[in-house]
Amino acid sequence: MRVGVVGLGNMGAGIAANLIKAGHEVTVYNRSRPKVDALAAQGATPADSVADACRGDVVLTMLANDDAVAAVAFGDGGIITSAGPHTVHISSSTISVELSKRLTEAHAAAGGGFVSAPVFGRPEAAAAAALFVVAAGPADTVDALGPVFDAIGQRTFVVSEDPSAANLVKLSGNFLIASVIESLGEAMALVDRGGVDKHQYLDILTSTLFSAPVYKTYGGLIASEQFEPAGFAAPLGLKDIRLVLTAAEELRVPLPIASLLRDRFLRLLAAGGDELDWSAISTLAAQDAGASDHSA
Amino acid sequence: MRVGVVGLGNMGAGIAANLIKAGHEVTVYNRSRPKVDALAAQGATPADSVADACRGDVVLTMLANDDAVAAVAFGDGGIITSAGPHTVHISSSTISVELSKRLTEAHAAAGGGFVSAPVFGRPEAAAAAALFVVAAGPADTVDALGPVFDAIGQRTFVVSEDPSAANLVKLSGNFLIASVIESLGEAMALVDRGGVDKHQYLDILTSTLFSAPVYKTYGGLIASEQFEPAGFAAPLGLKDIRLVLTAAEELRVPLPIASLLRDRFLRLLAAGGDELDWSAISTLAAQDAGASDHSA
Amino acid sequence: MRVGVVGLGNMGAGIAANLIKAGHEVTVYNRSRPKVDALAAQGATPADSVADACRGDVVLTMLANDDAVAAVAFGDGGIITSAGPHTVHISSSTISVELSKRLTEAHAAAGGGFVSAPVFGRPEAAAAAALFVVAAGPADTVDALGPVFDAIGQRTFVVSEDPSAANLVKLSGNFLIASVIESLGEAMALVDRGGVDKHQYLDILTSTLFSAPVYKTYGGLIASEQFEPAGFAAPLGLKDIRLVLTAAEELRVPLPIASLLRDRFLRLLAAGGDELDWSAISTLAAQDAGASDHSA
Amino acid sequence: MRVGVVGLGNMGAGIAANLIKAGHEVTVYNRSRPKVDALAAQGATPADSVADACRGDVVLTMLANDDAVAAVAFGDGGIITSAGPHTVHISSSTISVELSKRLTEAHAAAGGGFVSAPVFGRPEAAAAAALFVVAAGPADTVDALGPVFDAIGQRTFVVSEDPSAANLVKLSGNFLIASVIESLGEAMALVDRGGVDKHQYLDILTSTLFSAPVYKTYGGLIASEQFEPAGFAAPLGLKDIRLVLTAAEELRVPLPIASLLRDRFLRLLAAGGDELDWSAISTLAAQDAGASDHSA
Repeated sequence: MRVGVVGLGNMGAGIAANLIKAGHEVTVYNRSRPKVDALAAQGATPADSVADACRGDVVLTMLANDDAVAAVAFGDGGIITSAGPHTVHISSSTISVELSKRLTEAHAAAGGGFVSAPVFGRPEAAAAAALFVVAAGPADTVDALGPVFDAIGQRTFVVSEDPSAANLVKLSGNFLIASVIESLGEAMALVDRGGVDKHQYLDILTSTLFSAPVYKTYGGLIASEQFEPAGFAAPLGLKDIRLVLTAAEELRVPLPIASLLRDRFLRLLAAGGDELDWSAISTLAAQDAGASDHSA
Repeated sequence: MRVGVVGLGNMGAGIAANLIKAGHEVTVYNRSRPKVDALAAQGATPADSVADACRGDVVLTMLANDDAVAAVAFGDGGIITSAGPHTVHISSSTISVELSKRLTEAHAAAGGGFVSAPVFGRPEAAAAAALFVVAAGPADTVDALGPVFDAIGQRTFVVSEDPSAANLVKLSGNFLIASVIESLGEAMALVDRGGVDKHQYLDILTSTLFSAPVYKTYGGLIASEQFEPAGFAAPLGLKDIRLVLTAAEELRVPLPIASLLRDRFLRLLAAGGDELDWSAISTLAAQDAGASDHSA
Repeated sequence: MRVGVVGLGNMGAGIAANLIKAGHEVTVYNRSRPKVDALAAQGATPADSVADACRGDVVLTMLANDDAVAAVAFGDGGIITSAGPHTVHISSSTISVELSKRLTEAHAAAGGGFVSAPVFGRPEAAAAAALFVVAAGPADTVDALGPVFDAIGQRTFVVSEDPSAANLVKLSGNFLIASVIESLGEAMALVDRGGVDKHQYLDILTSTLFSAPVYKTYGGLIASEQFEPAGFAAPLGLKDIRLVLTAAEELRVPLPIASLLRDRFLRLLAAGGDELDWSAISTLAAQDAGASDHSA
Repeated sequence: MRVGVVGLGNMGAGIAANLIKAGHEVTVYNRSRPKVDALAAQGATPADSVADACRGDVVLTMLANDDAVAAVAFGDGGIITSAGPHTVHISSSTISVELSKRLTEAHAAAGGGFVSAPVFGRPEAAAAAALFVVAAGPADTVDALGPVFDAIGQRTFVVSEDPSAANLVKLSGNFLIASVIESLGEAMALVDRGGVDKHQYLDILTSTLFSAPVYKTYGGLIASEQFEPAGFAAPLGLKDIRLVLTAAEELRVPLPIASLLRDRFLRLLAAGGDELDWSAISTLAAQDAGASDHSA
């Protein structure tokens, strides 16, 4: 298929490279040129504008946040107006349910197709075509995109005909990760006070009921108190929890742990933790138990 | 080794059977006789009293709660007075840090050895000698018990010379399980309102970052809303969260998620949920989002 | 002074009437005409447009929410463009800190004066010129408005040169009221279960340390479980708590009780409580203690 | 009436003095002798033992906590065995619901009368006979004690025939005070960050809806950050919140604000705040908003 990729950060670059490897005709656009050149060297066609990336069967956006996606979608020369009736927009960024709904409506009004397909996986998984894709949109449109999803991920889950449902799933996943961070932070603060080594404690957990990547990855960061450089910075954590809470408020769903997490992130940022990994909220439970402040 | 086993419930019976299989000389005691007979058929020597089970190298207790352990330990003919200087008491029950400390002191005063060794694993794991043992106590005493631990579990973690540290680890593990239940309950209430199938949602989670037994087991119960018969009843959940909070209060460690969990269990029980599995606290998030009440 | 009043609901009508009584020349504007006529009968000059109400020394807005204030302030013929350099805009509505800042900037850019002056007090207090006015803005501008504030309230507190500070104070006051509702709800659920009469309990509280209007008013509603008709409807409560949380997030201030209140309001609304008084969140503590549901 | 008073701290001494002034025959007992002598100088008869204080119509205990009350009530020469069928025990200490029930049962078994009558008011109110008495017990017994209650307080509320109900009311009152402290702490942290003077803010609150002693007293301490010397020390605050939570757990009443308060007190104590007034938990909201630590 002919696929335009807009956004060549760590995630988008990996996705574009795998689309090329899978035999798709890939056009790439990025605000800064060097990343475009790197992909061109792998066989992609450089695009000079967002509109240029919208002339194939698919235009896939992988950008940092709502503002970045809205900027390339709406306005002059944006995707909404540039993608014709034969070009489907796949939004893979972690964006709000609200923006997803706005995109759905705008594409429908413009006569174009829209599918939301956020992914689970870090940049290494993107590079290895090992992402998990959570897709939602009209069934036939999603079906036809199979070759694209197969090229970038190891498995695709189709969750709804409503694109925004995929964004809700993605955001809820980040909420669950943050819940693990907080609960591990509390448990480690407790056993640490009780004289148990935190690394050994983590070993017990991940050898038994908690043998999942999320416990190994974040448990290691928490036990080592190693929060720099940030894999996913605290302000992004706050942003995602805020997006979860906003989506939940729209659906009238109280989420007490998400409320707690929001308070934790605010406190971490108030203490100057903007540069820390989001797992640094785990230090707050330790501080409250009398440990000295590691966050500032 | 010569090992007495006091308490032949689902867990204790499996442990005793595996000790026999491993070649230990096993004496068994239980309040009700039929369970003693079943083990006798497998090669154990029946004991007529707790004191009779205290004449070997080791007496291992595996009982329901603090009260049951205190009853066989203290008082006339109890383990404290019956176990001589050559008999080590291994406490494998999930008991409070406080009782563990009382046992430590009482055995020390009586000149006997004491090791705390609670286990992670359900009755099936006990039957399969696949438990994870978390042991704490004087290093040489714990070392000498290797053959016992090897006979009942797949791995032993020695966490401290202070026996109560093992109990703290065990209790904190139950806190983490309950945290998973609550956070999954909230996340599922949210995506359910957003039109996503809960079973498919769980499949996404457990295929990705959350591929751990605790998510599979409890996620399945929550998605299916199947809380009877209880694998671990709600009042026991409340009890363990209370024990965690009490231990944490002693160490002056605030645990906000544990506080939330305590409120959840109280609410579930106030609604008549005594017979339900502890994972039924997940229904409360769904109720708060407007779902009808499944708990009563 | 020549004062335009925009918004003649229960609060605005009382304010306009008192301005007339105090001898000011009052022009009134309201979207629906009958309320204008009622004030005209008391001596006010009817205005045909918002712009017409902006030709005096002052234009005071008293409207329902952010949207209503933004609608009369921005856009064609709005206050920002209609109020000249000699007309000060007093905003007395309960609006967001964010909108207050936008108004401050827009008036500054347009060369006009702006003061924020939300009030504490219900419609009866507005009618009796017994409001408490919390004013913020440039000192000389606020000083010059003394005759206006004196006409409508019993006391004026000047809190800052930054107008939005007054809105923050007003919103935080509503947060404190909601905190009283929640804590009374919990306490009454407790003593009720303990066999104590709720009305007598309230009598004890308000006879002693808690002898304030907020306890008497809301305590009475809670003890009587009388939530209809709503004096201040639950969706407005949620809105104000959301505005507090948003303002606090901007300042990076975690407010755990506000987080709890947000969850309470969402739950009440999810159960169908849109028409109830905001004090109906008190029923949730009682429900959680096993009382039957009064909210739906 | 002939009244024995056991416990001559700030509260008990004031109560005993007022009983003397009202014409009762007062016998006094205290562990340390000087306080006994001071009351003897005012006309009381010194008692050499608790039993000696139990020979009149009434023996009133006013002691620091459960342990102190249990010590004088149970055991050899204690009130339970010393008070005959004609001597009613009035317990005015702030004790647990559980101990109140134990006292009720023990007195009933011994054939004596028991009334629980905790008081609201600080030592100054005790000295001025201006306490508020919350009494519970058998109606005729309580009625007969009218002259005692009238001598020590300005008003008596009879809440139940079950003595422990009075203790529940007293404890719930302390919960409500702590709720005010926490919510004021959060609100002041917010407006302080927004540039509003905390003292002026408190003036606004207490001039309007929040014109109650609890806001004036504690608001002043919070605004001034003056937590030493402690009027009521933080460990006592934690103790009372624990007693509320325990009583609520027994009745299966979740109290989310009490759970939050418990975490706050633990954190304050973990930071070394044992000597501070309980209102110092208000500093935690300010710390979380980025203020420097005032608690240690």
